[in-house]
Amino acid sequence: MYKAQISVSLRRSILDPQGKATHNALSQLGFDGIDQVRIGKLIEMKISADSKDDAESMARRACEKLLANPVTEDFEVEIISESP
Amino acid sequence: MYKAQISVSLRRSILDPQGKATHNALSQLGFDGIDQVRIGKLIEMKISADSKDDAESMARRACEKLLANPVTEDFEVEIISESP
Repeated sequence: MYKAQISVSLRRSILDPQGKATHNALSQLGFDGIDQVRIGKLIEMKISADSKDDAESMARRACEKLLANPVTEDFEVEIISESP
Repeated sequence: MYKAQISVSLRRSILDPQGKATHNALSQLGFDGIDQVRIGKLIEMKISADSKDDAESMARRACEKLLANPVTEDFEVEIISESP
């Protein structure tokens, strides 16, 4: 059993209205030093697989099939722990 | 200028309907080995501050004031890079 952490973020070239709104809200709260806020998803899952490579490959396929939009988003997969 | 990466995730004791729905969708796509899907937010921002500690402290205050719900969510702040 492996634990995977997947980050899905909008590509740099894509506008991020949620990040922009958050930036504005932070400015209104007085956080003047904060800039370029971007918001993505952090997905954690447990994966049953025979090896770490198999687990990573399954997580990547899940991203390609469902978790990330291939047109607008990039993803990174990291296997952060394993347990028997 | 520091780059901060903030992960905001639901506490373990809180039900995660978005994660549950994603898990069901993955099962229907044939991803049988995937379990315990949980979905959080990954927030990236640039911070102008005098030191790494100041930047981290500003990011933490932003989480406490706006980015994380103190009742249902936990957050982690990491300063991942700095540039002049």
